[in-house]
Parts: sequence; C-alpha cells; structure tokens
Amino acid sequence: MDIIFLGTSSGTPTKTRNLSGVALRKAGSKPWFLIDCGEGTQHRLLHTNLSLNSLQAVCITHVHGDHCYGLPGLLASATMSGRSAALTIIGPAAIREFIEATQKATQLRLSYPVNFVDVAGMSGVFDGDGFDIDAVALSHRVPSFAYVFVETGLSRKLDVTRLKADAIESGPVWGQLQRGEDVILPDGRVICSRDYLLEVRKPRKVIISGDNDTPALLAESAKSAHVLVHEATYTEAVAEKVGAGPRHSSAKAVAQFAAEAAIANLILTHFSPRYKDSGGSGLTIGDIELEARTCYAGNLLLANDLDMFHLDRAGTLIRR
Amino acid sequence: MDIIFLGTSSGTPTKTRNLSGVALRKAGSKPWFLIDCGEGTQHRLLHTNLSLNSLQAVCITHVHGDHCYGLPGLLASATMSGRSAALTIIGPAAIREFIEATQKATQLRLSYPVNFVDVAGMSGVFDGDGFDIDAVALSHRVPSFAYVFVETGLSRKLDVTRLKADAIESGPVWGQLQRGEDVILPDGRVICSRDYLLEVRKPRKVIISGDNDTPALLAESAKSAHVLVHEATYTEAVAEKVGAGPRHSSAKAVAQFAAEAAIANLILTHFSPRYKDSGGSGLTIGDIELEARTCYAGNLLLANDLDMFHLDRAGTLIRR
Repeated sequence: MDIIFLGTSSGTPTKTRNLSGVALRKAGSKPWFLIDCGEGTQHRLLHTNLSLNSLQAVCITHVHGDHCYGLPGLLASATMSGRSAALTIIGPAAIREFIEATQKATQLRLSYPVNFVDVAGMSGVFDGDGFDIDAVALSHRVPSFAYVFVETGLSRKLDVTRLKADAIESGPVWGQLQRGEDVILPDGRVICSRDYLLEVRKPRKVIISGDNDTPALLAESAKSAHVLVHEATYTEAVAEKVGAGPRHSSAKAVAQFAAEAAIANLILTHFSPRYKDSGGSGLTIGDIELEARTCYAGNLLLANDLDMFHLDRAGTLIRR
Repeated sequence: MDIIFLGTSSGTPTKTRNLSGVALRKAGSKPWFLIDCGEGTQHRLLHTNLSLNSLQAVCITHVHGDHCYGLPGLLASATMSGRSAALTIIGPAAIREFIEATQKATQLRLSYPVNFVDVAGMSGVFDGDGFDIDAVALSHRVPSFAYVFVETGLSRKLDVTRLKADAIESGPVWGQLQRGEDVILPDGRVICSRDYLLEVRKPRKVIISGDNDTPALLAESAKSAHVLVHEATYTEAVAEKVGAGPRHSSAKAVAQFAAEAAIANLILTHFSPRYKDSGGSGLTIGDIELEARTCYAGNLLLANDLDMFHLDRAGTLIRR
C-alpha cells in the first residue's frame, strides 16, 4: 500500500506545504482514494501519477476549508478530463451542501454522477473496492472523523489439518471451499467455506485521522492498525500558548497515545505554518519531531508534501 | 502601475500555469486589486510581496470555477492573517451566493466585513482608492465582464493663460483653484476650479477582460486605454476545431481587434493547457504568439505566471 501526501500544512499553505490531502492506494494499482482535499490538491496531483479518472472515493474528515476547498476544482477538472464513472464522496452532510451550492452558483455541471455518503450516518463499513472503509468520530471544533482503511480480498489457504480431522476428502470439494463456496457433501453435511480457510496474513490497516484533540478516541481502531496518520499541529509549548480553542493535538499527545496503543508506524502531518522546514532561530518541524521521539519509540515519520510512504505486506513502512 | 499575473491557464492548472488571477497596483504602493481568483491564487501570492491585508477589492469577471474557486480560501487566509479592514468584492450576484453558501456550509467566519457589489447593477464607476473601476459586459457562456481601471488623483496645474485672459489676478485665489476649490471673486463672479486646471498627463487606463468571444465589445473603452489584458485561449485553427461552444477568443481575433482599436500594449493570457510552454512537436504558447504578431504590430506580451509588467507614466509597458 502507498500513502502519498498532497499537503501537510494546517490552516494556510506555505511555499513548501499545501493544505491537507492524502492519497491511498494498493501499490502497483491505479485505483486510489483521497482523504481530504484542501485548496490546491489538484495542483499537487499534477506532480504524481494519480489520475482523476481512477479516483474511487473522496473522504472528507471535516468541513473546515483547509480540508475541503479544493474539492470543487478537483470535481471540475475530473469533468474536463472526461471522467464518466460515478464518484463517491464520504463526509459530513455539510460537504454535500457546499458542493451542491457551489455547483448551482457557478454553473458547474459534472460529466459523472456523485454519490454522497453522510459519514455521520454511515452504517458499518463502506465497501471501497479493495478496502473496507470505516469512520471513527473524533473531537474538534466541528464534527471530525478518522477514516480507517482495511484491505480486503486477501487470498486464503485451506486449513488442511481441519479438513482431514473432519474427514473431508481431498478432491473438487477442496477447490470449491478454497474459492469461497459453501458445499453439501454426499453424506448430507453442509460445509461452510469460511470454517476451512486460514488467513495468509493479517489484512493491512491504515488510519487517516482528521483534526482531533483527543487521540485516545482512536484506541479501539488502533488495536490492529499498522499505520496511524495523525495531525500534530503544534509542540506542547505552543499548544499551551494558543490554548484549548483550536482543539488540535500536540506532537507529545499523539506520540504518547501511539506508544500506549503500540502502533508500529506513526506519520505526523498538518503542521502549523509557524514551524519552518529548517534553519534560523525560530520554530522548526524538527521541534515537533524531537518532541514526538521522546514519547514514542516506534517508526516515526513526519510527512512532507509529495512524500510517498510504502507499507509492505509484512507491515513495514518506509519512505520511498 | 504594476500588473502581476498570478495565473495564466484556462480551465485546469498545469505544472507551470495556475488558473486566472491578476493583481494591479500603483508602483511602489501597498494597496492592490485582484481581478479573478482561481484556485491556488493565494498560493501564488506567497511568491509575491502582495499582502492580503493591503488588498482593496476583488473583481470577479464571471462565475466559472477557474476564475473564482480560490476566493473562499483567500478570504479564510486573510482572516488568519488578522485582517480587519472591510473588503469589497465586485462580481456577478452569484459570487455572493457562492461565498455565503460556502461560509455557511463550512462554518467560515471572517474577521472583517465584506461588501459585495453586483457588477451587473454597478451604477457608474466604483471609487477604488486611487482608481476608478468601471465594468464592460462581454460575451461568454455566462455573464462575463471586463474591468476598466483608470488612475485617479493626478496632480493638475493651473491654466495660467486662461486665468490671465479672464482677468483673474494671481494671489490666494490661484491657490484655492489649484487645490480644487471653487471661488467667488470680489466682483461676484463664481469661478469653478475645474475650468482653470490642466491635466499634467493623461490618466493611465488598463482593461482586464474576462472570458469573451467578441473583443469588439471593448471598442468604446479601448479608445483611451494604455493596456488591454485579454484571453487568447486558442489559435484560430484550434478555435475552429473546438467550435463556438466554449465561446472564447482566438489569438487572431484579439490581435485584430487590438490593431483596429490602436491599443499600444496587448497582454495575452488564459491559454488552453494543450499549449505547452515550449518544445516537442505539439502545440506551444509560441504558436499563439506567432498568430497574434501577424495581426498586431503594437507591444505584444504573452503572460507567464508571476510575470510583473510595469506601465510607466508615459504609457510604456515593460516586463520587469
């Protein structure tokens, strides 16, 4: 799986960091998912090999402009590139209002249907073509959500030991069970495929979180997650200075949570523009990294725009 | 006067060209005006010395997304940079609907008041702090306008010959007339200041046009204009191929008009992304330039993103 960052700044863009946007796809596969779409997301896409025609769904974490103002332009450009396949947009209901009002006021007609899914009313997981997508409610100034992607369609192997123990003879029946078909044996027994299939490996699970001041809300989802992508807008010192109003997380708060939840890979993003990339006497992204490292001994990565992180089948995450 | 291009592509951005946006200011002066605000305009501003706090007014030519989808993000960033001064937005009434609907859906609260001016109902010129701003209706798929900027506040000199001919003695009265005050003479005559003041020079006039398939609609305004900024989306050959549907101008059509109207300086912009900056066997911006040059012998310039053009007091326009 690839996680590609299209923007890593919070609130306003900087010369090097755009507003929030993350792309997720199975490595080597064209279909992809977009989580958040700040202004300028379509501009960043021009520097990747992601195509608007292969975009499966857009998941918006919350209604703040730095997470969704790129959506009308992206939808318009998909029309200009000739897209015809339906596009799913999952997000707060107000995202639908925003898009529909924009279409009406600016006479934007799309060449494809849009299926809006209200994340607050999403019942169970959404079947996202290679992924199950689930949402977790967070804590922010407005309703905000994390999207949890779990890969689906993994091949499974037959549990031969159990087949033999239950006296199910090898033959065409084994093939049927392997393909996921249930079978009635000549002796009348009904055999369920899922009882005789073993996971080849644990499906990979990636959490991409929206703005959130309470990382512990992700505790349940984090249990089996391989990667957590979470905002770390400030260091603790700045978070204390700005007060609780903005309702963001500090690097310390996220790193402590990731350590307690034993998450193997943590990617921080959504940095306040007051943190510069490097140098000078002012605040830097390095300050955020240092604070997080003191609390978390796992694989910590700080995202830059256009970074691509690859999660292999063994659950190892590396920057490509 | 400086004319700074923030975007020069039509429809969709390219790696080198953003969507429509032009900044206008008096040289050496902080206040500035923005004409159109495609997505990513605020990103381009980061590479200029234009400040959102000094922005006097935004003029939107028409409602198409590539001319206005950057507006919500720009307004939000002005709030984050602490702006308190009122901002004027001149444009079609639907721009107000777009902004207000976006504010409501995305909970965008601004730190300053916005004064919307419906360009279709704008009575006479708008007093724009150093400029008179007028609008001219164009021809496009939706109502589209050109904005005409004429500098104001030029110093004027006394018409001494006329003062003497009318037997108005030099003294304090001459000073009052110079300052623009009307005067009653001891002999009872009422003297109007404007009758005794001469223009030091012709005020500079710049036309910045929206999308338009009929350049001749600008004939009246063009009479005394120093600069025309106009779209040249295609060459004639491509314009014929795409047909009349998009309702844009070819380079030839604009250049022929500028030649007939005897406009001294013509800047072309809003190029279809099919025209590359250079090289290869495909279409290039050079094709648009070549076509325009064959019809127009004046000062022809093709805009690139972040180009700054300086119009001096004598009406000479150069690329800085």
